[in-house]
Amino acid sequence: MNQKTAIPKGTRDFGPVPMMRRNYIFNTIRSVFELYGYQPIETPAMETLETLTGKYGDESDKLIFKILNSGDFAGGMDPDLLSRWINESEKSAEISRQIIPLITEKALRYDLTVPFARFVVQHRDEISFPFKRYQIQPVWRADRPQKGRYREFYQCDVDVIGSDSLLNEAELIRMIDEVFRRLGIPATIKINNRKILAGLAEAVGMGEHFQEMTLILDKLDKISPSDLKEEWIGKGFPEAAFTCLWPVISHKGTDVEKMHKASDFLVSSETGRLGIEEIQTLLKLISSFDLKATVELDLSLARGLNYYTGAIIEVKADRISMGSICGGGRYDDLTGIFGMPGISGVGVSFGADRIYDVLDQTGSFPEVTRTTTQVLFLNFKNPDPSEYLPFAEKIRQAGLRTEIFPDAIKIRKQLQYADNNHIPFVIMIGDEEWLKSTATIKNMLTGNQETVPLAGLTEHLCHLIG
Amino acid sequence: MNQKTAIPKGTRDFGPVPMMRRNYIFNTIRSVFELYGYQPIETPAMETLETLTGKYGDESDKLIFKILNSGDFAGGMDPDLLSRWINESEKSAEISRQIIPLITEKALRYDLTVPFARFVVQHRDEISFPFKRYQIQPVWRADRPQKGRYREFYQCDVDVIGSDSLLNEAELIRMIDEVFRRLGIPATIKINNRKILAGLAEAVGMGEHFQEMTLILDKLDKISPSDLKEEWIGKGFPEAAFTCLWPVISHKGTDVEKMHKASDFLVSSETGRLGIEEIQTLLKLISSFDLKATVELDLSLARGLNYYTGAIIEVKADRISMGSICGGGRYDDLTGIFGMPGISGVGVSFGADRIYDVLDQTGSFPEVTRTTTQVLFLNFKNPDPSEYLPFAEKIRQAGLRTEIFPDAIKIRKQLQYADNNHIPFVIMIGDEEWLKSTATIKNMLTGNQETVPLAGLTEHLCHLIG
Repeated sequence: MNQKTAIPKGTRDFGPVPMMRRNYIFNTIRSVFELYGYQPIETPAMETLETLTGKYGDESDKLIFKILNSGDFAGGMDPDLLSRWINESEKSAEISRQIIPLITEKALRYDLTVPFARFVVQHRDEISFPFKRYQIQPVWRADRPQKGRYREFYQCDVDVIGSDSLLNEAELIRMIDEVFRRLGIPATIKINNRKILAGLAEAVGMGEHFQEMTLILDKLDKISPSDLKEEWIGKGFPEAAFTCLWPVISHKGTDVEKMHKASDFLVSSETGRLGIEEIQTLLKLISSFDLKATVELDLSLARGLNYYTGAIIEVKADRISMGSICGGGRYDDLTGIFGMPGISGVGVSFGADRIYDVLDQTGSFPEVTRTTTQVLFLNFKNPDPSEYLPFAEKIRQAGLRTEIFPDAIKIRKQLQYADNNHIPFVIMIGDEEWLKSTATIKNMLTGNQETVPLAGLTEHLCHLIG
Repeated sequence: MNQKTAIPKGTRDFGPVPMMRRNYIFNTIRSVFELYGYQPIETPAMETLETLTGKYGDESDKLIFKILNSGDFAGGMDPDLLSRWINESEKSAEISRQIIPLITEKALRYDLTVPFARFVVQHRDEISFPFKRYQIQPVWRADRPQKGRYREFYQCDVDVIGSDSLLNEAELIRMIDEVFRRLGIPATIKINNRKILAGLAEAVGMGEHFQEMTLILDKLDKISPSDLKEEWIGKGFPEAAFTCLWPVISHKGTDVEKMHKASDFLVSSETGRLGIEEIQTLLKLISSFDLKATVELDLSLARGLNYYTGAIIEVKADRISMGSICGGGRYDDLTGIFGMPGISGVGVSFGADRIYDVLDQTGSFPEVTRTTTQVLFLNFKNPDPSEYLPFAEKIRQAGLRTEIFPDAIKIRKQLQYADNNHIPFVIMIGDEEWLKSTATIKNMLTGNQETVPLAGLTEHLCHLIG
């Protein structure tokens, strides 16, 4: 009868302390989103297979978790197909691929971007544009699990769609700054513009291979420049183009110097010049903010996603080696695939798991994220806890989170419980206290004890806890 | 290229207003849970098929959404099985049933109770018992969608496990009272005890059919007493037993009268007498609370779930016809199936969707749940919004949720946007205001306008918004 207890690989349970820490991160992000006028939405965990497939590329499509049709799904399978497989004329992997659409019609969302695009198109008549939304929900990917990579993880997306004003980019950068300021994470916000990259690609004769070029550049985070060059050449791209491009995109200097360097290259590219203009406007806008984070133009920043068309943004925590903790950009046609073309939008996504790891590794979680209960009444059996229930109620009415230990077990064990759960104050009402209408308050951190009249217990605790 | 936009049947998108209302419900419930010392946990959306199957009964097992194995799942199918199906010696429905374990090993959770039991056993060494946890997460069921029944919906569960004290039941009832008090929903909390029901079953010679009896009684909500009797007889149970039982469980009167009526029946049943004792203790405990909700002993309350062994609880909203909005009870061996027997627990689950419907139908949502943004700056093109960005920032630093309309479109349309999004205050800084260093504040509810010095704008808004 006994079963093993295990959860699917790549997934996680979150106990109370991790939950409180995660909620601290989500609440911080959420409050900044709302401070800048973004509104919450949620979409279903499942989308139709049609909505999700063909949006992320073939490799990623394989990583989408499909949901088996309910009931008699076998009725949808193709007997002819199966016969060919049984008779080994076809490989099962190929059969698997062909069977999928016959036995599944739903899948778990892979990110929040495609469901958001679907949402906007489906609800276009109810939405007042520009639509400023945020969405904090889990996504699922059948990736190979490894350190820091999970099959279920939260994304925190914030997007404005239906406005091409650069004010939006500027405010998003200010919001990123505010989130990491509140979380106490020193951060560098790297920005670039895909139009500049497109112009540079044109200038070195790589205009037709722009998307592939950005995919290669996107790896600069993980591989060395010489490996990057090797990959470039390996793809069959001319070495000369790389030699030409590299000094521009890797130029060290001020943002102004980098723009000059790029501008020299972009005289003949209208797109490229527009990109430079956009960056200049954006830098001017954010100069009016008193940012704590460093903002830095990085002409090698590419972002691997095809739908970006303007500003791109990537954020790294300073002084710690970790992938990007936030990223995003401007897209001009995300909803086009669902029949609503030409709606420009811009957004960023915060990586809650990586932010958690940064706070954890730098010991930066505030102490308060380890505590739910503030007050615990020990249970001495005599008097019966029902006697002082009304006092506990009064403390709760004052807003203090309060427990009564339900069972009259050994006091040592009850104190151990308080310790394990990081409960700061313990109330002891034994026979003696009860006779005198008093209560003893024990500060679990300092070990100090004081005895106060029961009638003044709530006020005293409020004073202690503040 | 254009795709239809649709979501799987039985699932829902939540736009900003429903989201804010749902968050109002979740936050109210969560704050009461925490006030009584319950701690948050979360478990993965997916559990192993082994964890979920066989826990809910055969009918429910069919309603569990299974996840297709990634990659070459066809490799796991049984060619012999498929041959038999292709040659039509077996029906595809039967084949479907047999194929499931070959091509799926994970499924979406069906409730929060089984994952909680699995969590407790898996993390027993990290947990300090009694473990007071709450969990607010969606669950998925392949039920036929209908009004008020969805394939994805949230459950809000709160349980304490590892304590058999009736203090827990009492506090849960107080918490239910507090949740509905805060939400402004007049409610009746019906209680009963499965030990009393078990005793009554013994007394009328139905001891061996206790579980089936509770399943029939559980329908009393949906069908009339005469239909109930018909079903009873239809199951082959003696009519005499029903005739004997019915006057006891349907007795109208005070709780004390009901207990007397039942006690007369239970003289020879130890279990039954224990049930009466427990109810008496529980009623005494909750009498010390100043409850707003009505608590009522209902001897016909059965709850359809087999694992309940003591107190059972079900809550209905008064003055509105709606299924139960909260329910739960005491269980003595939930973790037994995972190899940790004899751990008693008690908990209840709040139905967020039904609570939403009650608040919606009675017009009881507070106005504040329709608003995110409090202040909107209109965009007159001149002065350029970048000029007054620092003023908007100052308002945000004061904690007011503020937007700047990003595009200089027609003012009429910008005001429409404010209206549609229920934004209460609009700031107008046109050429004239800018020259005079003033701003005009428009109250969107009253239409009133006033012009104030830019330097005092934040203070003025704080004063208006409070």
